[in-house]
Amino acid sequence: MDRRAFLTTSAVGAGATALAAPAIAQSTTKLVMVTSWGRGLAGVFDAAQKVADNVNAMSDGSLEIEVKAAGELVGAFEVFDAVASGQADMYHAADYYFISQHPAFAFFTGVPFGMTATELNNWYYHGGGMEHHHALGEIFNLKSFLAGNTTSQAGGWFRQEVTGPEDFVGLKFRMPGLGGQVLTEMGASVQNIPGSEVYQALASGAIDGTEWIGPWADEKAGFFEITKFYYTAGFHEPAAGLSLACNLERFNELSTTHQSIIEIACGHANIWNMSQYLYENGAALRRLADAGVQILEFPPEVWDAFAAATDTVIAQYMGDEIFKGIYDEFTAAMLDSSAWINRSISTYRTQRDRVLA
Amino acid sequence: MDRRAFLTTSAVGAGATALAAPAIAQSTTKLVMVTSWGRGLAGVFDAAQKVADNVNAMSDGSLEIEVKAAGELVGAFEVFDAVASGQADMYHAADYYFISQHPAFAFFTGVPFGMTATELNNWYYHGGGMEHHHALGEIFNLKSFLAGNTTSQAGGWFRQEVTGPEDFVGLKFRMPGLGGQVLTEMGASVQNIPGSEVYQALASGAIDGTEWIGPWADEKAGFFEITKFYYTAGFHEPAAGLSLACNLERFNELSTTHQSIIEIACGHANIWNMSQYLYENGAALRRLADAGVQILEFPPEVWDAFAAATDTVIAQYMGDEIFKGIYDEFTAAMLDSSAWINRSISTYRTQRDRVLA
Repeated sequence: MDRRAFLTTSAVGAGATALAAPAIAQSTTKLVMVTSWGRGLAGVFDAAQKVADNVNAMSDGSLEIEVKAAGELVGAFEVFDAVASGQADMYHAADYYFISQHPAFAFFTGVPFGMTATELNNWYYHGGGMEHHHALGEIFNLKSFLAGNTTSQAGGWFRQEVTGPEDFVGLKFRMPGLGGQVLTEMGASVQNIPGSEVYQALASGAIDGTEWIGPWADEKAGFFEITKFYYTAGFHEPAAGLSLACNLERFNELSTTHQSIIEIACGHANIWNMSQYLYENGAALRRLADAGVQILEFPPEVWDAFAAATDTVIAQYMGDEIFKGIYDEFTAAMLDSSAWINRSISTYRTQRDRVLA
Repeated sequence: MDRRAFLTTSAVGAGATALAAPAIAQSTTKLVMVTSWGRGLAGVFDAAQKVADNVNAMSDGSLEIEVKAAGELVGAFEVFDAVASGQADMYHAADYYFISQHPAFAFFTGVPFGMTATELNNWYYHGGGMEHHHALGEIFNLKSFLAGNTTSQAGGWFRQEVTGPEDFVGLKFRMPGLGGQVLTEMGASVQNIPGSEVYQALASGAIDGTEWIGPWADEKAGFFEITKFYYTAGFHEPAAGLSLACNLERFNELSTTHQSIIEIACGHANIWNMSQYLYENGAALRRLADAGVQILEFPPEVWDAFAAATDTVIAQYMGDEIFKGIYDEFTAAMLDSSAWINRSISTYRTQRDRVLA
C-alpha cells in the first residue's frame, strides 16, 4: 500500500474562506487502522471500532479512522510490521501477539500470574505503565496505548476433564503469549492460531483444546458444540489488554489536538470494552451451563504446576534489561494494588455474597 | 451569575478568514463547571479537572471548561440546583449527595450492598445504566454522565473498636447517602458534612467517627492524627461513582461533536480516576499501618446488622416507581456480573495469592 494514500486531503475547497464567519476551511486527515480481528468478532473488533467511532465523533470531521478487519489489508499477525513500516497508520491487536518482536509486549496484554485488568489499569495510568508502553513501542517506531481489555481469560475448553498436571503432557492446545510457553514447559504441544481458525482446528482434532476469551465470546465461537469441559479461571491472561499502536512518525505529524483525541478515545474504549466483557460474560455463562457445559476449576495441584512452569518461563526473559525493569515495577505495583483490593473490594464481595445467600 | 456570561464568544476576529487556508475562524464556547470539591482535594477534584483537561485538549480551542471549587461560585451541595436552574453550566459531584431530590441518584454513586465500581461500569455502559442516569437527570433539567469513581469506600475511622452492632447506637457518625440512613436505622446519629469540615468535626468531638474515601484520601485528610481505628471494607458505598451533569438545555445547544467530546472525556476520566484510587490506596494503607493505625474489619454480626438495616431502608423507597425499576435491573445485573467475576477474577486472585505466598 502506498503510504501517500493516507496523507491529508482537503475536505473543503479554498472557496470556503469566503463564507461568513465562523468559516471553517478544514482538512481531513484519514488514517487506516489494521486489526487482528475478523470483522464483527465479538468484543475485540468492537473495541477497535469504538476507538474509531470515538475519534470520528470528536474530531468534527478533521480526523477519520477507517477500520480494516484481519485479512482485508494484512493478516491478523502482520499488523505490527505493517504499522511499524508505515504500510498502515495504526493497528488494534493484543500486544502479546508480538512477543517475538520483544517479550515485554506481554505485559500490555497479560502475563501468567500477573495483573488483572483492574490492576493493569491502575499501573498503566498512574504507576508508569503507559510510559513503559510508549518507550517499548518507540523501539519499533510505534506509539502505543491500551485500547480495550477482554478481562481475565477463561481457562479454556478441553476434550477431557483435567485431573492433574500430567494431563498437559502431549496435549495439543491453542494458547498465545507467555501462557503458551508455560504450557510448553509443562509438556504440551502449543499452537498459536488466529481466532477465525480455532473452531475448525478444535472440530477436526488438530488441537485437543483451546483457550479463547470468556463465556460471551466463547459461546459465539461455538466451542460448546464440540466439547463440554470448560474451565472458567485461567492462569495465563489474568488481564487481556488490547492495544492501539500508531506509526510513530505518523503520530508525531498529528496536531496535539488529534494526539489527545486518539489517546482519550483509547482510554474510553478501554473501560467500555472491559465492562462489555464483564457484563456479557455472566449471562453467557448461565446459557453455557444450560447447554450442558460443565463449569469447572483446575485443581490446586494444577495451579501449582502452572506456577512452577511460569517461574521457569519468566526466568528465561529476566536477562533482558527492559523485560526485567518492567517486570519488577509491574510486580511491585500489583502486590500493592492487590493488598488494598483484598482488604476492601474482596472483603466486601465476600460479605455481600454471604448475607445475600 | 448571569447565564449570558457563558454564551459563545468569538475567539478569532473576522479578519482570520483572510488568512491562507486552512483558515479557521473558530468560536469558543466557554462552560463553567461547579464542583462539590475543595480545590485540589485528592482524587475527587482531580477527576473534575481531568474532565475539563480532556475536553479542552480535544476541542482545539472550540470548547473550554473552567473548573470552580466548592464555595468559589456556589457551595458544595448547591451545585445541583445551580446547574438545574442554569446558574452554572455543569457540575462534578457524587450524585448521592442529591438523594433528597430523588433517591435513585444513589445508584450512580453507590448503594449499600450494591455494585462495586467495576460492576457499576459493566451495567452503566452495557446494561442500560447510563440510559437510566440520563432519564433521571432529565427530570431535573440535567444531562448526567459517570465521570470518576473513588471505588469501594473504606468502612471508616472510629474512636473505639467496633465489637458489635450495639456500638452504633448513639454514635455520632459522618456518612452521606443511603448508607447514612442505614446507620440511622441502627441507632446512630448521622451527619452529612462537606469534606472540608470533617477533620475539624472529628477533632472537636462533634462526631465520633467518619467514613471518607479510602487510605490515600483519608491519609491526606489526616484522620489518623485523631484516631487509630480504621476499617478497610465498608457496606455503604461499594462503588463511589462521581458524576458530571450539564444543564440539559445548554447541553442540547452544543454541537454533536462537543456532546461527544464531553461524553467520552467523562468516560476516560472515569477509568483514570478509578485506577488512581486503586493505585494510590495500596501504598497509603502501608503508610497508615506504619503510622500505628490499626487496620480492622467489621465482625460478621456487624455485617449482618448492616444488611438487615439496609433491607429496611431500601424497602422505604421501593414504592417509588423509578427507584424500584432501577433497583430491580441494577440487582439482576449485579448478580450476573458478580457470578462471573467470582468464577474468574476472584478464583484467579485466590490461587495467585496462594502460590505467591
